[in-house]
Amino acid sequence: MKNIFGNSLTVTLFGESHGPAIGAVLDGLAPGIKIDEDYINSKLDQRRPVDKISTPRKEADMPEIISGVFNGYTTGTPLCLIIKNENVKSGDYDSISRLARPSHADLTARYKYGGFEDYRGGGHFSGRITAALVAAGSIARKALEDKDIFIGTHISECAGIRDKGFADLYTDIAEVNEKGFPVLDDQAASAIRAAMEAAASEGDSVGGILETAVTGMPCGIGEPWFDTVESMLAHGIFAIPAVKGIEFGAGFDICRMKGSQANDAMRYEDGKVVTVTNNSGGINGGITNGMPVVFRTAIKPTPSIFKAQETVDLLKGENAVLELKGRHDPAIIHRARAVVDAVTALVLADLLTMRFGTDYLKTEEQSNTGEHI
Amino acid sequence: MKNIFGNSLTVTLFGESHGPAIGAVLDGLAPGIKIDEDYINSKLDQRRPVDKISTPRKEADMPEIISGVFNGYTTGTPLCLIIKNENVKSGDYDSISRLARPSHADLTARYKYGGFEDYRGGGHFSGRITAALVAAGSIARKALEDKDIFIGTHISECAGIRDKGFADLYTDIAEVNEKGFPVLDDQAASAIRAAMEAAASEGDSVGGILETAVTGMPCGIGEPWFDTVESMLAHGIFAIPAVKGIEFGAGFDICRMKGSQANDAMRYEDGKVVTVTNNSGGINGGITNGMPVVFRTAIKPTPSIFKAQETVDLLKGENAVLELKGRHDPAIIHRARAVVDAVTALVLADLLTMRFGTDYLKTEEQSNTGEHI
Amino acid sequence: MKNIFGNSLTVTLFGESHGPAIGAVLDGLAPGIKIDEDYINSKLDQRRPVDKISTPRKEADMPEIISGVFNGYTTGTPLCLIIKNENVKSGDYDSISRLARPSHADLTARYKYGGFEDYRGGGHFSGRITAALVAAGSIARKALEDKDIFIGTHISECAGIRDKGFADLYTDIAEVNEKGFPVLDDQAASAIRAAMEAAASEGDSVGGILETAVTGMPCGIGEPWFDTVESMLAHGIFAIPAVKGIEFGAGFDICRMKGSQANDAMRYEDGKVVTVTNNSGGINGGITNGMPVVFRTAIKPTPSIFKAQETVDLLKGENAVLELKGRHDPAIIHRARAVVDAVTALVLADLLTMRFGTDYLKTEEQSNTGEHI
Amino acid sequence: MKNIFGNSLTVTLFGESHGPAIGAVLDGLAPGIKIDEDYINSKLDQRRPVDKISTPRKEADMPEIISGVFNGYTTGTPLCLIIKNENVKSGDYDSISRLARPSHADLTARYKYGGFEDYRGGGHFSGRITAALVAAGSIARKALEDKDIFIGTHISECAGIRDKGFADLYTDIAEVNEKGFPVLDDQAASAIRAAMEAAASEGDSVGGILETAVTGMPCGIGEPWFDTVESMLAHGIFAIPAVKGIEFGAGFDICRMKGSQANDAMRYEDGKVVTVTNNSGGINGGITNGMPVVFRTAIKPTPSIFKAQETVDLLKGENAVLELKGRHDPAIIHRARAVVDAVTALVLADLLTMRFGTDYLKTEEQSNTGEHI
Repeated sequence: MKNIFGNSLTVTLFGESHGPAIGAVLDGLAPGIKIDEDYINSKLDQRRPVDKISTPRKEADMPEIISGVFNGYTTGTPLCLIIKNENVKSGDYDSISRLARPSHADLTARYKYGGFEDYRGGGHFSGRITAALVAAGSIARKALEDKDIFIGTHISECAGIRDKGFADLYTDIAEVNEKGFPVLDDQAASAIRAAMEAAASEGDSVGGILETAVTGMPCGIGEPWFDTVESMLAHGIFAIPAVKGIEFGAGFDICRMKGSQANDAMRYEDGKVVTVTNNSGGINGGITNGMPVVFRTAIKPTPSIFKAQETVDLLKGENAVLELKGRHDPAIIHRARAVVDAVTALVLADLLTMRFGTDYLKTEEQSNTGEHI
Repeated sequence: MKNIFGNSLTVTLFGESHGPAIGAVLDGLAPGIKIDEDYINSKLDQRRPVDKISTPRKEADMPEIISGVFNGYTTGTPLCLIIKNENVKSGDYDSISRLARPSHADLTARYKYGGFEDYRGGGHFSGRITAALVAAGSIARKALEDKDIFIGTHISECAGIRDKGFADLYTDIAEVNEKGFPVLDDQAASAIRAAMEAAASEGDSVGGILETAVTGMPCGIGEPWFDTVESMLAHGIFAIPAVKGIEFGAGFDICRMKGSQANDAMRYEDGKVVTVTNNSGGINGGITNGMPVVFRTAIKPTPSIFKAQETVDLLKGENAVLELKGRHDPAIIHRARAVVDAVTALVLADLLTMRFGTDYLKTEEQSNTGEHI
Repeated sequence: MKNIFGNSLTVTLFGESHGPAIGAVLDGLAPGIKIDEDYINSKLDQRRPVDKISTPRKEADMPEIISGVFNGYTTGTPLCLIIKNENVKSGDYDSISRLARPSHADLTARYKYGGFEDYRGGGHFSGRITAALVAAGSIARKALEDKDIFIGTHISECAGIRDKGFADLYTDIAEVNEKGFPVLDDQAASAIRAAMEAAASEGDSVGGILETAVTGMPCGIGEPWFDTVESMLAHGIFAIPAVKGIEFGAGFDICRMKGSQANDAMRYEDGKVVTVTNNSGGINGGITNGMPVVFRTAIKPTPSIFKAQETVDLLKGENAVLELKGRHDPAIIHRARAVVDAVTALVLADLLTMRFGTDYLKTEEQSNTGEHI
Repeated sequence: MKNIFGNSLTVTLFGESHGPAIGAVLDGLAPGIKIDEDYINSKLDQRRPVDKISTPRKEADMPEIISGVFNGYTTGTPLCLIIKNENVKSGDYDSISRLARPSHADLTARYKYGGFEDYRGGGHFSGRITAALVAAGSIARKALEDKDIFIGTHISECAGIRDKGFADLYTDIAEVNEKGFPVLDDQAASAIRAAMEAAASEGDSVGGILETAVTGMPCGIGEPWFDTVESMLAHGIFAIPAVKGIEFGAGFDICRMKGSQANDAMRYEDGKVVTVTNNSGGINGGITNGMPVVFRTAIKPTPSIFKAQETVDLLKGENAVLELKGRHDPAIIHRARAVVDAVTALVLADLLTMRFGTDYLKTEEQSNTGEHI
């Protein structure tokens, strides 16, 4: 389905970096979800560049909701939001428009779209499109929170520096969601910031690993064989630019365990089945088991760097050297967490809607207009 | 998929009559389709109200394409177009907002959306949304024309008055596409207009039957069992408000024939297989057979009339009488033809893309940017 | 999606008339639906040929359920059923295999599948495939009945002879579902049978119109704009071979009414909103309004007739005359009603599942295995 | 879509471990793909248990193709294959049927299906279902090979022992596809087998990492944003039981690189753009770049072990100890490679069909039946 994702709740993405606007359509949202603009903006803030370690291209990036909301609540009809593109310096890109940027989509876009693609600023492949994803996802995410389902993501590792792990998830998720720079341990945060700035000063970039946890997911969610929680989350997460890996629970490390170590023993606690360990990441057979859903996402270093790079000149058909100018992020991992959270919210909202019907995410039972029928 | 339709080429509709904007997203369009704004506008003109027999709410209704087009050609990425809502007199609707309009979606929308729906002017159910459908469809339609696939629709019958039938399809389709009022026979046209005006003067409305023909469709198009030409066209056409029936080829009349009359004899003509009659409407087993695709669509009389109507007051929970004020169409059939044409174009473009791949509808082989790879 | 139909509950059809088996997969069925084999067989009986007026090819046609059922209840995992092909006289077809049968899919299948199709007995286009559809549909239909949603179809018109209309739907639906020959009026039934036999004796065939009604549908079902009750039913019904038209409520006749006649006045009755007339066929804006859903389907005369027909010899590339031998139905309309009922059940079950979640159609709350968690 | 996966080419899975049969439907396959039964069986052999290190449940596991093939070629209509279940010892499972097996889907299936699931042998969650996936995938895979697209998977690591890496992909892929035990280095193979047998003797199990490479993929394949090569492969691969992670190209290791190390420099070679390194795994922006597609899959240790495990008795609602009897695999990684290969083939075939149309995978242009039209 190309630019559409989901089953019962779908998100459609559109837009190019230097076109008139980017945006998203959510179709299948329950009616009666309260729209909290401050909440949406707080999530967009987490995606916005911060000080020295991010690109100074600053935009209002304020989404306009142009359909699907009435008197402050979703109507149940498609919600379209757009974010206009402003403050665009296309000139920065003109000089390099014929040199394919290594590990960007410049070359593959040309293969696929035959030279008709809008190449300016990466066009439809720009990380900028994720602003629409964050705005859309935050609507679903707020509805999940109103059902006590909470999502949080921290930088588990960056430039070789590790954050402490999630411990008490309820407080850790709350804490990381308050932070502009999503690292639990303050010393690790400082070290990671320093590493990012050091990379920036060399014209280079760094990557890292995001760890996401979700609490409060009902048991029995996921649609095997193919639309399992893992399959759907992986599908959505890999749509985010710069993602090169995903692992659930103990992930790749589980491969080095014996079965007797890897298996999560079960027991009753307060009449509920819990597991002693959570190597499964809250998912068995693709279905939630009531434990927190936990996964990690590998984010590659920002491919836009300021060192000379060997590449090809697509116009001249010859080898060339690319020296990027302009201002770019030496790291995007701290901004990417908002996107991972948003995609997670959309996937879980979709699976819950499929399971429980189109009204499940409603936050208000009270009719908007007062009629009772 | 609710507000999304199609397989390889999908259209997503959004918007409410009195919200900020309506619009559509096309996903799966080939790159390299030339955007002809005059063409798009000419199709929107056919949907616009005309003089006495249509509602005087006049809007620019000019679509803005906010993504998916670069240097005048589609990019192959999602094309989003929006049409802003202006000139909205919400006041006209406030006084009746609690009285469900008979044979409108007011009541059913409340059942489905629980009172959160935007009821103003029919909200998401307004015929106005079809402007976005016409704009989107006309992009696909122009690409089809560049492949010698032509679509035309005339009013076959209205208020008991019949137009002459399609005869030479190539000239008739061209002719009807030039006409603002889509009736082939000029006397019939005058009579139908007169009937519409008479209905208007009584505060009443009329309906009719649209007949659509498509020439030039390649053989072998359609995806049985379920995504046949008939199933997909019917699916799309019934999404248009006011449609209550569809029939292909000889349609309901074929039920009164014997098999020996109904069957279309075949023979070779210029090395190509043709049928002597076209009772099948160009489709056998759901797949095109090379003959013109022909179908008829039943359009009910506009449900907004100015006579007193029994209905219910949804707030008070009691019976009531509705007397509509304001200005409405005594007929929409002449405007609906643009919508039927648009949906037809979208369905055929989808089936052709599925069959021949994502580049099939390209109108230019020449790269937009000059690169060759 | 080609041979897959539905959103939350999908049906996948497979098989060729003279291959090893035909069958269907239902994906998205609730767990806990009781499987009633007698019920399924009673519906298959309605599709089976009857005496003189149908083809004598008699088969057990007993479906085997090979997955998705355990201890007599659906498991919630995909239910696959197959019906083996037996008693196949391929020889009957060999002599005509190069002559395309008029108004069959022989020619279009060759266009689409390039000569790789299994042409024997119409292959994948054979009406025989509908046996799998009836079996699958009857599982959904029984679950709907357990929720007091009843579907019934009668021959409204055949060979120019009209049945009386539906009057008291609850008793009429029950009555027609008991009948092997689905005509309400016994005199009309005799006349229609006689007309079918007369056509058979001439080597000819007749068609007709089926009228379907559904009682008990909850209000607010349907997913505008595109997956409305009308769009989804039309999509499914046009997948049935021989269907050339569909109309809802007053259908094509509504086009000749004024708005003041066509509109369904509303009023409260026992605290529920009802309409005085049902020209809308129980659907407004594509959503159920609580009145019975009513539609009519145009079934063309069986294209297999025994009169000489002009056609083409696809091997020799020349015109030819086809004289069919063997035994075929002079009418399929009486058998087609079981298929229309089945498709209707599948579409409504899908829309209800989308609306209310994956457990909605469950007929038993009691766990199959006794565990409580 | 639950048990259906893909866009233009879909696979539907059905069946339970101890039900009558398992199977798959492929919809959207090109007509004219030659069916090579020896090839299919050779792939099923790779999934079959081997000697001491796998469960002795041996079955013919021979798939029967019951539709969609005629005279040895695909017809273009849905291909259904079934594998009957034989040699089933349900008794083995009865005694444990109320004890949820840790890190299996027993508990989550009960949450989701409410106790109606077929729990015998894991029911629909059994790894046995993958036999149908392998059979279906091998049909697509053979068609890809006929277009010079080759897929190969080896055990990159198991029980802490590492195989050598892929070097010359063309010969390595050919070599590993010939091997019953997919390890390139013979010494590593022996060590891994020994580790598996050691785990078996302790009643324990081991996991590992599979590395997959694909050569020959055309450039420009993948459908951003959501149906990219990475998203679609991840979606499909996570449907395989026991998978807990996936990474593309340099994967999680890329997170520790600087951008200047991670980026793949580009240059022309023989008029074609190549990259000097392949940290991107052949994919940029979700689209193939012409380099080999490379990914790694984390396979957890088989959860069925013979050591005592703490778990819950779902009937009694109390804690319990599970001591499995019977015979199980101490490792499934060597068998899982056939499943990973099959899913990879299905995903790539789907993306290629979407891109180039429904006839792309055809292996024969020659009509099956001889007609030319």
